[in-house]
Amino acid sequence: MEITFLGTGSGVPSKQRNVSSLALQMHQERDEIWLFDCGEATQHQILNTTIKPRKISKIFITHTHGDHIFGLPGLLSSRSFQEGTSKLEIYGPKGVKEFIETSLNVSQTHLKYSIEYYELIEGVLYEDEQIKVTAMPLVHGVDSYGFLIEERDQIGPLIPEKLKEKGIKPGPIYQEIKNCEVLTLEDGTEIVRDEVTGSDIPGRKVAILGDTLPFDGVVDFVKEADVLVHEATFINEDARLAKDYNHSTSLQAVQIAKEAKVKKVLLNHISSRYQPEELQQALKQLQEAYEPTIYVSDFDSYTVLKEGR
Amino acid sequence: MEITFLGTGSGVPSKQRNVSSLALQMHQERDEIWLFDCGEATQHQILNTTIKPRKISKIFITHTHGDHIFGLPGLLSSRSFQEGTSKLEIYGPKGVKEFIETSLNVSQTHLKYSIEYYELIEGVLYEDEQIKVTAMPLVHGVDSYGFLIEERDQIGPLIPEKLKEKGIKPGPIYQEIKNCEVLTLEDGTEIVRDEVTGSDIPGRKVAILGDTLPFDGVVDFVKEADVLVHEATFINEDARLAKDYNHSTSLQAVQIAKEAKVKKVLLNHISSRYQPEELQQALKQLQEAYEPTIYVSDFDSYTVLKEGR
Repeated sequence: MEITFLGTGSGVPSKQRNVSSLALQMHQERDEIWLFDCGEATQHQILNTTIKPRKISKIFITHTHGDHIFGLPGLLSSRSFQEGTSKLEIYGPKGVKEFIETSLNVSQTHLKYSIEYYELIEGVLYEDEQIKVTAMPLVHGVDSYGFLIEERDQIGPLIPEKLKEKGIKPGPIYQEIKNCEVLTLEDGTEIVRDEVTGSDIPGRKVAILGDTLPFDGVVDFVKEADVLVHEATFINEDARLAKDYNHSTSLQAVQIAKEAKVKKVLLNHISSRYQPEELQQALKQLQEAYEPTIYVSDFDSYTVLKEGR
Repeated sequence: MEITFLGTGSGVPSKQRNVSSLALQMHQERDEIWLFDCGEATQHQILNTTIKPRKISKIFITHTHGDHIFGLPGLLSSRSFQEGTSKLEIYGPKGVKEFIETSLNVSQTHLKYSIEYYELIEGVLYEDEQIKVTAMPLVHGVDSYGFLIEERDQIGPLIPEKLKEKGIKPGPIYQEIKNCEVLTLEDGTEIVRDEVTGSDIPGRKVAILGDTLPFDGVVDFVKEADVLVHEATFINEDARLAKDYNHSTSLQAVQIAKEAKVKKVLLNHISSRYQPEELQQALKQLQEAYEPTIYVSDFDSYTVLKEGR
């Protein structure tokens, strides 16, 4: 699992930061890329990465402000042009479908793949045997959502010594034991998986929030996440502006992360009004409040490691 | 009059060329900028120029393919964000208004200025005492248009010797004479403007065409233009592809220009399939056919001089 930031600015693009988008790359886990938000020129940013648009299987949209969606028509067209033929799922608030369909109709774009739209609701959006995605409404003046991506825990590794004690030699039977809670052998012996495996490997937990004011419930939602991607449009000195525009300050984001015992905080959606020196100064204060905090830049990548790796 | 190319590629953006857009800057003439087409990330390209979005007063759209319109919602939003408050006129084929209105509605973007939409028709789109814009339908599978921007001829300079002969001394009267075809002085003398001015200064003529196959009538439309901006998606060797996709080859464009006695040919909308060396090779052939021909690149600027300047 690797998060690559494609746009870390807010509102309008600047030379330093593009508008919002990030890719969650899961090449090892499932050979898929999931995109979160798609501001204008996301496809242009992708040209500077190794990301292949045809590998994007799901797009999650936090909210329909232009700096989060205006790159969709172009990206969808290019995905088709670049031999993307597999189905694409798009999860977004009401309006996303209308915007995309109108764009494709007016431009007479005929995609080589189908799109399935899912309108956002609070709760579980998607789950399979490997992963679960939950959505949570945020507070931003318009419908805005946060997403929690949770890997399921994995069965711990088999312990060869314990298997040897039971007279089981290495072979295909190992996989059978791993697949089955209680396996009965031909001679009637029962192998209880829990007795021959190490403790479960906890699944990773990534929280990606859209634009929001701080609100009750956010701490519970992101509780003990391995990574929290949180907007930080304003610095603490501009808390008033943040409130007026339904945004968070970086310090508010960090306080949430601290309370939730999040392992790493990646701050994005940063206003272009701040010079790099101002952000550097602000970061000191943030890291004093909660050390595992950074501001991210366009093209930064962050690998979410499994516990103990 | 200065033409700045903001995107000279075709279909999808590449690292070398963005999708279509060009700016016609008329700072001296009328302190306005007119934009022709607005592919995705046109506003990003503008960040690398001196162009101020609020100075853009008219946008002309040749056709509604995505690579010519997907940058509109973002540019319009940023024009507002960057204190653009003056009315904007948008001339485009059917569909442009629907695309823009849906984009702004879904994203809940409230512009600080009004937009007036004009659906393209064959003939005169706009005229004032200084300039006239005419549209011509092209042949591209979808409604596609070319634009001819014609400055009106200007009255030639006053000839001081001739005025002196008539006993007229320099002063505010000079301007009066220039403003009036026949001016009657207090003593009853009639000053015929044509007799005291040099020959008219011909207005400049700029032809900007959208995507098109070559067709009857195009030569007449661009006749003796000072500049012809013409698509050249394919090189001559790929004439078959050009025909299949309703596009022109660079040689076809140049042949039209030659026949029409155009003074300068700027070739844009170039497929990313060609390496710079291939284009260089192709250019030799083109310039042998018609010398005043160039391929343009993103950020190239071309000043359209008045005759004799």
